[in-house]
Amino acid sequence: MTAATVTDPFVAAALSYELQPATEPGKRFVALAEEHAADFASRAERHDREGSFPFENFEALQRSGFMAAMVPRELGGLGVESLYDMMVAMSRLARGDASTSIAANMHVAGASLIVRHLRRSQAAGEERTVAMLEDLLRKVSAGLVVICVPTTEPGTDITSPQMEATLTEGGYLLNGRKIFGTASPAANMFFPSVRISNGSGGYLTATAMVPRDTPGLEVKEGWDALGMRASGSNDVAFKDCFVPEEVGLFNVRDNYGKVGRGFAELDLPLISTFLGVAEAAREIALATVKNQRKGPNRKLLGERIPIQHLIAEIEIDLSVSRALVERVGRLVDDFTRRHGAVDNPPEGIALMKEVQCMKYVVNRKAIEVVDRAMIVCGGGAYMSKHPLSRLYRDARAGPFMQPFAPYEALEYIGKVALGMEPALDR
Amino acid sequence: MTAATVTDPFVAAALSYELQPATEPGKRFVALAEEHAADFASRAERHDREGSFPFENFEALQRSGFMAAMVPRELGGLGVESLYDMMVAMSRLARGDASTSIAANMHVAGASLIVRHLRRSQAAGEERTVAMLEDLLRKVSAGLVVICVPTTEPGTDITSPQMEATLTEGGYLLNGRKIFGTASPAANMFFPSVRISNGSGGYLTATAMVPRDTPGLEVKEGWDALGMRASGSNDVAFKDCFVPEEVGLFNVRDNYGKVGRGFAELDLPLISTFLGVAEAAREIALATVKNQRKGPNRKLLGERIPIQHLIAEIEIDLSVSRALVERVGRLVDDFTRRHGAVDNPPEGIALMKEVQCMKYVVNRKAIEVVDRAMIVCGGGAYMSKHPLSRLYRDARAGPFMQPFAPYEALEYIGKVALGMEPALDR
Amino acid sequence: MTAATVTDPFVAAALSYELQPATEPGKRFVALAEEHAADFASRAERHDREGSFPFENFEALQRSGFMAAMVPRELGGLGVESLYDMMVAMSRLARGDASTSIAANMHVAGASLIVRHLRRSQAAGEERTVAMLEDLLRKVSAGLVVICVPTTEPGTDITSPQMEATLTEGGYLLNGRKIFGTASPAANMFFPSVRISNGSGGYLTATAMVPRDTPGLEVKEGWDALGMRASGSNDVAFKDCFVPEEVGLFNVRDNYGKVGRGFAELDLPLISTFLGVAEAAREIALATVKNQRKGPNRKLLGERIPIQHLIAEIEIDLSVSRALVERVGRLVDDFTRRHGAVDNPPEGIALMKEVQCMKYVVNRKAIEVVDRAMIVCGGGAYMSKHPLSRLYRDARAGPFMQPFAPYEALEYIGKVALGMEPALDR
Amino acid sequence: MTAATVTDPFVAAALSYELQPATEPGKRFVALAEEHAADFASRAERHDREGSFPFENFEALQRSGFMAAMVPRELGGLGVESLYDMMVAMSRLARGDASTSIAANMHVAGASLIVRHLRRSQAAGEERTVAMLEDLLRKVSAGLVVICVPTTEPGTDITSPQMEATLTEGGYLLNGRKIFGTASPAANMFFPSVRISNGSGGYLTATAMVPRDTPGLEVKEGWDALGMRASGSNDVAFKDCFVPEEVGLFNVRDNYGKVGRGFAELDLPLISTFLGVAEAAREIALATVKNQRKGPNRKLLGERIPIQHLIAEIEIDLSVSRALVERVGRLVDDFTRRHGAVDNPPEGIALMKEVQCMKYVVNRKAIEVVDRAMIVCGGGAYMSKHPLSRLYRDARAGPFMQPFAPYEALEYIGKVALGMEPALDR
Repeated sequence: MTAATVTDPFVAAALSYELQPATEPGKRFVALAEEHAADFASRAERHDREGSFPFENFEALQRSGFMAAMVPRELGGLGVESLYDMMVAMSRLARGDASTSIAANMHVAGASLIVRHLRRSQAAGEERTVAMLEDLLRKVSAGLVVICVPTTEPGTDITSPQMEATLTEGGYLLNGRKIFGTASPAANMFFPSVRISNGSGGYLTATAMVPRDTPGLEVKEGWDALGMRASGSNDVAFKDCFVPEEVGLFNVRDNYGKVGRGFAELDLPLISTFLGVAEAAREIALATVKNQRKGPNRKLLGERIPIQHLIAEIEIDLSVSRALVERVGRLVDDFTRRHGAVDNPPEGIALMKEVQCMKYVVNRKAIEVVDRAMIVCGGGAYMSKHPLSRLYRDARAGPFMQPFAPYEALEYIGKVALGMEPALDR
Repeated sequence: MTAATVTDPFVAAALSYELQPATEPGKRFVALAEEHAADFASRAERHDREGSFPFENFEALQRSGFMAAMVPRELGGLGVESLYDMMVAMSRLARGDASTSIAANMHVAGASLIVRHLRRSQAAGEERTVAMLEDLLRKVSAGLVVICVPTTEPGTDITSPQMEATLTEGGYLLNGRKIFGTASPAANMFFPSVRISNGSGGYLTATAMVPRDTPGLEVKEGWDALGMRASGSNDVAFKDCFVPEEVGLFNVRDNYGKVGRGFAELDLPLISTFLGVAEAAREIALATVKNQRKGPNRKLLGERIPIQHLIAEIEIDLSVSRALVERVGRLVDDFTRRHGAVDNPPEGIALMKEVQCMKYVVNRKAIEVVDRAMIVCGGGAYMSKHPLSRLYRDARAGPFMQPFAPYEALEYIGKVALGMEPALDR
Repeated sequence: MTAATVTDPFVAAALSYELQPATEPGKRFVALAEEHAADFASRAERHDREGSFPFENFEALQRSGFMAAMVPRELGGLGVESLYDMMVAMSRLARGDASTSIAANMHVAGASLIVRHLRRSQAAGEERTVAMLEDLLRKVSAGLVVICVPTTEPGTDITSPQMEATLTEGGYLLNGRKIFGTASPAANMFFPSVRISNGSGGYLTATAMVPRDTPGLEVKEGWDALGMRASGSNDVAFKDCFVPEEVGLFNVRDNYGKVGRGFAELDLPLISTFLGVAEAAREIALATVKNQRKGPNRKLLGERIPIQHLIAEIEIDLSVSRALVERVGRLVDDFTRRHGAVDNPPEGIALMKEVQCMKYVVNRKAIEVVDRAMIVCGGGAYMSKHPLSRLYRDARAGPFMQPFAPYEALEYIGKVALGMEPALDR
Repeated sequence: MTAATVTDPFVAAALSYELQPATEPGKRFVALAEEHAADFASRAERHDREGSFPFENFEALQRSGFMAAMVPRELGGLGVESLYDMMVAMSRLARGDASTSIAANMHVAGASLIVRHLRRSQAAGEERTVAMLEDLLRKVSAGLVVICVPTTEPGTDITSPQMEATLTEGGYLLNGRKIFGTASPAANMFFPSVRISNGSGGYLTATAMVPRDTPGLEVKEGWDALGMRASGSNDVAFKDCFVPEEVGLFNVRDNYGKVGRGFAELDLPLISTFLGVAEAAREIALATVKNQRKGPNRKLLGERIPIQHLIAEIEIDLSVSRALVERVGRLVDDFTRRHGAVDNPPEGIALMKEVQCMKYVVNRKAIEVVDRAMIVCGGGAYMSKHPLSRLYRDARAGPFMQPFAPYEALEYIGKVALGMEPALDR
């Protein structure tokens, strides 16, 4: 799929319009993603069929340094700072295995969020937190830590966690249950979002840090879904989990119920993952129609004008998704440059509108591209062993992803465009 | 799902616009379908998960008389003659389990095609064939026969079989391989389409009759697909299968490569099956939003206007599919009344245009309805145990179904509308 | 466009699937519509360009008996009772000139509503009203009356008129302003919907009968719209218009704000008008591609597969619209048979859901069909003198038509499907 | 519409995501476009109604320097080199009056093409041509020249002109007829594309330069179209027009029938014009729903969730079109940097695929955005005096624009994506 493997000059030219990373560290990140993708593709069907977690993929990602991509160079990582580049990298990884992509993203984005916490703590002179986070990030670079940031709970949205941290002697007790705890089978450090009473009837939010061996923490194995079956998105239960005061809770803030820039590290690469799914489907469709002959005249599929139309529609959809990822990626990076690690500036709501526009389109286009690729490839694509039958199931995960259902995203976008507070009717 | 179980007056009224059978025998057929659907729904998830064939469903369908629906009353059947009614019945059965619906359709439609052969043989005074077919149909009524009519082969379309019957002493030798041999695990009588040399370089088509225990016939167990996993749509191989001259081959005709009225019995109820899938998805969505509360305000989903819009879009899509099935069903029944059992009158091409319009829309609408129902139901619908995750996979089978891929259907429809011979560029 | 003019057998067959009237009087009605359409088509461009009212079309419609189609035979009309047949007739007329179709519908539907009032009055033994209405209908048959039923007002919906009738000596004074008073240039008898105080703070609705020469009635000439430019849909102002008690107001009922079966006569043929617009666009597209050669190879447009696809998409859209009009037309006629002239039975809400599903789709499909026909015909279709440029503008009127904007229709449909009172959030 | 006029912080933020020029000269160009747009908007309705050419707009554009935007600074122009910036400027101008935008683009792009010819002539050391073109461009800067580059002819595509230049004594005779000669009422210098025999049965293409007063040149006044009515897109006829050898014909090349980078200056800003149309429709919709109350409850339209959804869908479509214009604009500028003024390098075909993807989407989205804005604004938007009724007609011009009909674009895109020569079946 990389330029090096293409000899056909038109296709080479066409492929050159795929997304390119914007920074030097990003280029290394994306190159790693492409290498891993080629490897992971060979195991994707098996893990999908079994619903098994790809531990060996995670090990390879640790070995190559991919998992430490967002960690600063001085702490041993690749030093990628551009979220746009992270989106590109995850789209590339997803071409090989979307489940691994979203699982790896849980860790990589988690590390990136920790870097943001670090920057804030440095600015605030919180030395103990700084030391704790630097130590953690060094362990990430050493491949000793796998991060899971479970934020979803049933019946609420990610900005309003119901999982609660209550003060106890020397720390906090955590109680609650997270769902869609992607990467949980491999994770040894959990960062659930929690709420804490603000003492006057309302809540603050915070991030807890809970080692896997903490008593009361239980990963409920048994993730069994339509797609993304190798992502290990188990429920994670916390029952009276004790975390010490000094390192158990951080980033306490008045953020309850506010959707803004907040979780961009987690959310954005999840969106570009579906661009990667669509790109993979395109490759399968192209390879099929360039080689397969059908019908009484044994005409090459690719020489039929209706097939060319379907390929064009795929191409158009990809051009849309790529343009959106590139534009919003640039906007986000520019935003970060201007706001630094400030968590949720007001302008973040306007930016989030653009993010939601991108998500709405990219998720849907992925579904449509896979659908068209199936039409192009014919009945064989309906067989379990055909990769499109997996992509068809993986692609459908997109619209379920946080923080909004598609109809909620419309309400959010509309309200912001109208200059209204985006407080949803939910 | 039947009127009797509904007490809410508006919903009762709304439901009354579901399709109704047009004839008295059809009413009995549809009533049986509804009873079976309620039963089969309870086992659908298990068979889907296992990819196992629902033998017990087939036994129940034999016991109730459902499987003999299209057999004339004088031969022990229900005497249904309306293909429209058959479409309605299969849409009802599919509400419970789409896999069983398409498997049962293979048999029921096969019996119906045999009735057509019988009528032609009666008109032609072919006494031996008449006796053979009457005997066969009586066995159908007695529940002794399960029919499989495998017509699909890789790399060709159903009007141009490559499986060949060659003359040998006392009969024919059959060689070829069929795919998508739905219901094959239970079938004991196979009716593959074959070609026979016309002696001058071209071919005639015919229907062969091959008991399961014929040496050389092999059902290749191992159907493993994205959806319709309980339909047993295995490959069926025929290697030097001998069939005797007097009963082995019938309905020999100059029909090679012509798409017309031909296989309406097989095709039409397959289309309405997807109406049933969509109706099942609608029921799930309605039940969910009428009972589920979400979000910080615990607002009933059904009370949210965006959810009402999604429900409306489902309703609109169903209204379209129902109207098409009803109109085309009436057109087909009217056509049959005017042409009797004549196999492929020229007007059949114009009718097939309408059928293809219906198929194009109904298949696509089923996919869209299931998709919307998933949006309505939220992340839970992505779990393997949620019935929508099965319907999402089952629904996608529609566009693959014979005789045309969607882009071929467009070419066919366009050419006929333009008054051109619908010889496709394939 | 009629079967008689077609010699190509495939096209003849294809055309035979256009909608057919269900009753004998309906056949006469539809035949008249086809004759008028061929005539009106020749003047449609001029009236559209000028925005002039087609008085000569109305005179022709009076002479032929078309305008009295819904008047009982014993009162001199054609005796059409089927609303489905009326929908078919108006779709045919619209093929020639959509403006004339909606203008004629205002009168024909108005007469039909009066027949309903007559039936209710007969049942109630209201002899004076019966005599008045019979006299009126005889004048309709004699071509002496042109009816306008203005029901729309700015800022409210048609079920909640703000135009008011207040008691005065010997009758009522009417005050208010109606918009979209289609056919008003030719009308000599106006039947505006009005509200009357119920004496306890609420309102009843009623229909007023106001001869054109009533002091205070003013037709505000100057209809100037994007399309439907020859429909004369002027504002009509009523200022202290006096109507006598005995004949000025009838059908007083507690109907304020209730959307149900109510105005089906007016609304349904307006919907099928857009089917006629789409059918006209299809004819233009077919004629163009069957005769026009383009490009360096001078290939006939119709022989290009992409053009065949576009024609097919038009065909599919028409199949959808026709199926919906036929199904809902049958449902409405069946409803009328069961409920007679009862104005707004509860079941009418369920029926209105189906009507709104039809409207939503048929209006949108008309726009899409015209759009595709423009693509098929190329740049010439953008010229003012090309009939498609008129159809493009006429077609867009559909979604504006009463009683619901598209998003209101969705809310209505969704609420009814959910078993909720369809009280819209407006 | 500019940031300065917005006080609402959310809207201000939202608006800041409109496209921004990339270069300093581009900023001036875009600022001028915004000023002119505000002025032209006040006359757009009148010119549209009359079909009159906006001469006063052209005079204003000459006075401000807008018309010389692409002329190098050393020749008196603004020195804009970025085609992306030109796309942004034309999208801004189109917000005020799309007809003026495409007419101005004819001139501005024409000047830009002349700059390219100048660069090539400079590189080739063609001194006489250099002098001629520099003189011409100085006149452009002085406001003395209005350029029309008519390239379209009936029945052929823009790469294969049928208008012919034949050698005669001292120059060439031109014969042919161009259609869609936008800006022709104001133009005093025409640059039609022509073909010249290559002496061996084939053709070369070239650009002719024909002053308006050349005998035989006739602008056929009478442009009368559905939309873009003030663009003066008349036919221009050339009958034995003599042009002298030294300045009459230039840029002769072997380019017949090849679609590549060629006319990017003309085509790309025509595409972004429709982004401007969509943005104008969005502004109208926002202003309406933020101020208008409707229905029995007099609820502000903007407070209704379905209206928020429609606004969101508009917003999403705009985000798509903006992202595509930005991405493809950057790609084109990068391409130009790498290839200079080389006319049609092979890579141009791959780039043109991206351009066609953009055109396909942006044109369609403009139509959809205007349609949604009409739904949002209700029946008033159907009146001739409402600006949306003009935008509805203007927007439909997009899919007709050269070099491809939508179905041809699909074939082109598909073939290039498949690595095939994009020789269309036309």
